[in-house]
Amino acid sequence: IVATGVCHTDLYHLFEGMHKDGFPVVLGHEGAGFVESVGPGVTEFQPGDKVIPLFISQCRECRFCKSPKTNQCEKGWASESYNAMATQDSRFTCKGKKVLQFMGTSTFSQYTVVNQVAVAKIDPGAPLDKVCLLGCGVCTGFGAAVNTAKVEPGSTCAVFGLGAVGLAAVMGCKSAGAKRIFAIDINPEKFEKAKVFGATDTVNPKDHDKPISQVLAEMTDGGVDFSMECVGNVGVMRSALESCVKGWGVSVLVGWTDMDDFAARPIQLIAGRTWKGSLFGGFKSKDGVPEMVKAYMDKKVKLDEFITHKMTMAQINDAIELMKHGE
Amino acid sequence: IVATGVCHTDLYHLFEGMHKDGFPVVLGHEGAGFVESVGPGVTEFQPGDKVIPLFISQCRECRFCKSPKTNQCEKGWASESYNAMATQDSRFTCKGKKVLQFMGTSTFSQYTVVNQVAVAKIDPGAPLDKVCLLGCGVCTGFGAAVNTAKVEPGSTCAVFGLGAVGLAAVMGCKSAGAKRIFAIDINPEKFEKAKVFGATDTVNPKDHDKPISQVLAEMTDGGVDFSMECVGNVGVMRSALESCVKGWGVSVLVGWTDMDDFAARPIQLIAGRTWKGSLFGGFKSKDGVPEMVKAYMDKKVKLDEFITHKMTMAQINDAIELMKHGE
Repeated sequence: IVATGVCHTDLYHLFEGMHKDGFPVVLGHEGAGFVESVGPGVTEFQPGDKVIPLFISQCRECRFCKSPKTNQCEKGWASESYNAMATQDSRFTCKGKKVLQFMGTSTFSQYTVVNQVAVAKIDPGAPLDKVCLLGCGVCTGFGAAVNTAKVEPGSTCAVFGLGAVGLAAVMGCKSAGAKRIFAIDINPEKFEKAKVFGATDTVNPKDHDKPISQVLAEMTDGGVDFSMECVGNVGVMRSALESCVKGWGVSVLVGWTDMDDFAARPIQLIAGRTWKGSLFGGFKSKDGVPEMVKAYMDKKVKLDEFITHKMTMAQINDAIELMKHGE
Repeated sequence: IVATGVCHTDLYHLFEGMHKDGFPVVLGHEGAGFVESVGPGVTEFQPGDKVIPLFISQCRECRFCKSPKTNQCEKGWASESYNAMATQDSRFTCKGKKVLQFMGTSTFSQYTVVNQVAVAKIDPGAPLDKVCLLGCGVCTGFGAAVNTAKVEPGSTCAVFGLGAVGLAAVMGCKSAGAKRIFAIDINPEKFEKAKVFGATDTVNPKDHDKPISQVLAEMTDGGVDFSMECVGNVGVMRSALESCVKGWGVSVLVGWTDMDDFAARPIQLIAGRTWKGSLFGGFKSKDGVPEMVKAYMDKKVKLDEFITHKMTMAQINDAIELMKHGE
């Protein structure tokens, strides 16, 4: 592993009670590096290949991989029934004691061992310190707009939460031809960056007494065509749904939480809205990541603009602290 | 009005606190009859036309009518901003006192006055005592499967609740080519009728200790492709969502309630499920109802099998009681 990003999902593992048998563990799932060596049976890779490890596999054989409707492979780390490179099959040890692998990747490490169904070979010219972001955050947000919401040319969009995932969602909306993109955050320091990625309007819910859904409804003739929740907060999920126009509004859950239920009144859906979710932006991982690397090399998607700090592995805890504070 | 069905939505108006300014009122919204006379400006209808009044209008001019994505016209009763034939514009009086109109239709009456955007001219040969059911329940359930869920040939489906709407949803799944249709109700007396409409399997949740979603997952390799909630109970809505297969499962809210929130864990959507809602089965009303009448005349949809009782207008309260008891 040459470079890795930090993601709130890494921290999620640390939340009290969430993963009581999940320690000790090497976190990290947004990395890029080289193949150092291959094990028996590995046919797709050779030492020296530039690669991005994938926390969602693509085996190309299961019914999910064969369906165009989903990116959620039945093999790899995410499947309980397939333990190669899953948490319990970790190759990490420390002082003779087993250390668990995280999301089948564990990129906060110089070396890791991954199954070949969960790694993507990328353009040898790609800068690893940039394209590592395609291992999670940027694909997650961009794909949520392009693949899951299927944002349409000329449409209006709202993105809730302007971390890396939200900014990537803004970029996805712009790439899909949205006419108006509302970037929403309670931290106004995020707004300048959102405009870099294509936001046409910025809204701080704290500036309004009315619910944000009502504010957006008044700005858009009844609500936006597409909304994306990129926070991982069930209250914001509801606001994002309610911000959609009746008749055909589509809202996508992108931010991850599993602590609480999300909820709304039935009429919100019966009036014609659709509620969906997106994992890794709906990208079939082994196909999608190299395509996104190419799009970056072709200057069709931005990556450099996401990077706020470059730090050494020894500073990983400082990096996590900066992320926690939205910096 | 020559014939009318009874629907739980009529009763819904009577629930405590729901419609405090909604009385006195003439209920009913699932009727069929003849045009008796037309007012000035009416161009589409003549006295003697066989018609079905529509609680969702189709003006053909608003942005909703012009979009193929929705059936929710901006005019008519359902719109607050358009008061022709809306509740407050009722032409009913009783002993000189104004009586409100219900859903722009009020079919529990020999005569009613409707706006021409909210009435469909149908085949002069259609039997009114059968096709009145297309004014609400049968279109609602059938269309939820065909138009909203977009059930696919060879798919697996689950229909929760086997009243008229649920039975019509079963018929819609069959019409769309579903391979396996699970008809689910806590009243096993509904199962024989469900088979008439195309159910391949019947499931009574009371026969199982496990949650119904788990029962269905075990019967279907992880869950059904499509589920439809035809009860109007937020707990059943959650079960219907959770009964869908991850990756691509689609669940549709069809049953109406506005008393409580529906809810689920974010992972249920993030894992690839879609939650939608359907009003009047997604049919653009003025186009869809005559097409469904034709489908009945061509023996492509069943209507006779829905009819359990024929009663006079004087027995309307008895009819309501039978419905309340699921008879």
